[in-house]
Amino acid sequence: MKLYVIGIGLIGGSMALELKKCYSTIEVFGVDTNEAHLDEALALGMIDHKGRLEEINQADRVILSIPVKDSLILLPQLLDRLSENALLWDVGSTKEELCKVVESHPKRDQYLAAHPIAGTEFSGPQAAHEGLFDGKPQILCEAQKTRPDLLIWAKTSFRQMGMYLRFMEADDHDKHMAYVSHLSHISSFMLGKTVLEQEEDEQNIFDLAGSGFESTVRLAKSSPDMWAPIFEQNKTNVLRILSSYIENLENFKRKLENDDIADLHQQMKHTNQLTTILNGIKHNN
Amino acid sequence: MKLYVIGIGLIGGSMALELKKCYSTIEVFGVDTNEAHLDEALALGMIDHKGRLEEINQADRVILSIPVKDSLILLPQLLDRLSENALLWDVGSTKEELCKVVESHPKRDQYLAAHPIAGTEFSGPQAAHEGLFDGKPQILCEAQKTRPDLLIWAKTSFRQMGMYLRFMEADDHDKHMAYVSHLSHISSFMLGKTVLEQEEDEQNIFDLAGSGFESTVRLAKSSPDMWAPIFEQNKTNVLRILSSYIENLENFKRKLENDDIADLHQQMKHTNQLTTILNGIKHNN
Repeated sequence: MKLYVIGIGLIGGSMALELKKCYSTIEVFGVDTNEAHLDEALALGMIDHKGRLEEINQADRVILSIPVKDSLILLPQLLDRLSENALLWDVGSTKEELCKVVESHPKRDQYLAAHPIAGTEFSGPQAAHEGLFDGKPQILCEAQKTRPDLLIWAKTSFRQMGMYLRFMEADDHDKHMAYVSHLSHISSFMLGKTVLEQEEDEQNIFDLAGSGFESTVRLAKSSPDMWAPIFEQNKTNVLRILSSYIENLENFKRKLENDDIADLHQQMKHTNQLTTILNGIKHNN
Repeated sequence: MKLYVIGIGLIGGSMALELKKCYSTIEVFGVDTNEAHLDEALALGMIDHKGRLEEINQADRVILSIPVKDSLILLPQLLDRLSENALLWDVGSTKEELCKVVESHPKRDQYLAAHPIAGTEFSGPQAAHEGLFDGKPQILCEAQKTRPDLLIWAKTSFRQMGMYLRFMEADDHDKHMAYVSHLSHISSFMLGKTVLEQEEDEQNIFDLAGSGFESTVRLAKSSPDMWAPIFEQNKTNVLRILSSYIENLENFKRKLENDDIADLHQQMKHTNQLTTILNGIKHNN
């Protein structure tokens, strides 16, 4: 079985490692515009060969793990050249536009829109590792549009990586990701920006970061190459939730200006229920 | 040596454990309005006896670790009754008002304004543990106002807990804490509130939280009893930095509305430099 991984970074690389573990006869070809990443992936045993997009007709399986903006262009072209029994899935963070762009493609049923909820703020093949997906959800969108035999193979493989499956429509996926992921990233990036603008002395950031900053700002280390296109593609949902967030911050500010500390206390108390919900993550799956 | 710990929670409890390790002859008295916490602390061997505020004149050392609003009232009263060679330090997150309230107190030099930058989002004696302060900074404010012999004892003891010392004026401390801690907490609480308002189905929060939310929202589990008074006491600084944060978010929103993705990319790229600064924390101290 020939697997082509297009974009050999954290997610693509880790998935290649997992599939190598599952299927002993698999042969992995890496495709990347970054030649250094390809060399690293070869050295790390993550891929067996460098591959080229032109050979994609030889692939049995294809993982598309590049910035979502590039996927929009590349996905239909790849499907055009895909052989009859091949399966291609992407791992991007937005799904609505991508599903739309191949809606009427004659090989739509050889594509699966997937989003593994796993990852760190680091990127590149050196960040990839086995076990990244263990216990994590894999969101599959419009799964009913994928050919049943290919879908079964994919579901089995993802489960073998330790993932549990969730099924969503593409528009629902993007809406919920705006709430639970994209807003978090904007919040974190802007928090980092605000503090950098104020703190002239980096030593203060060093010394005081442990008091909360380091945790809320972790996501501000994320790659702009990955995130700018996500915000762009999920613009409508992101703008809506960002407005709600700003409104809540404005309201907090007003209450503090008016010394309505009891109201602030009540808001925080209410939000504390997240503790229970997030603890539920561990027990529920 | 008799140590009184007023407020036997995460910080007070952990500090009691450390001092017991340092000084074999120490006897620890716990004072708390929460009787259950006192019983827990006794059971955990964190304190040797329950104590009462009325006996504070018997204390050699006093840790004041209660919400900052209560400290404002209690600190001068405790100093009034402190014996001649006793030292009292607080561990609160705001310092300017507290230092002001005892500015002209005849026993000002038996007080040390301290802020250990350590802690988690959890509270209560069961959250306390040895090693909490290891490698963490201890901020001392207006240290020159504390009697030299008492200050030396405190510095030695804090270093024995593994802490490194930083010295700041009280107003500087509060300004920097607004930037690097208080804003992070507001950002996190309001993020949690916003998502809770939108997500009707908690299962989505479960499944998607790993995509960023869980990390940015960790601080929203913090205790409102501790945090409402901090925001109140640091109102001026908090309002100023909160306004800058909202402005940055508004700007991000406008750029996204106008499809100026290049600008968003540039902002995120710039903020990425936090990676270097935060990595510096580990190497710098």
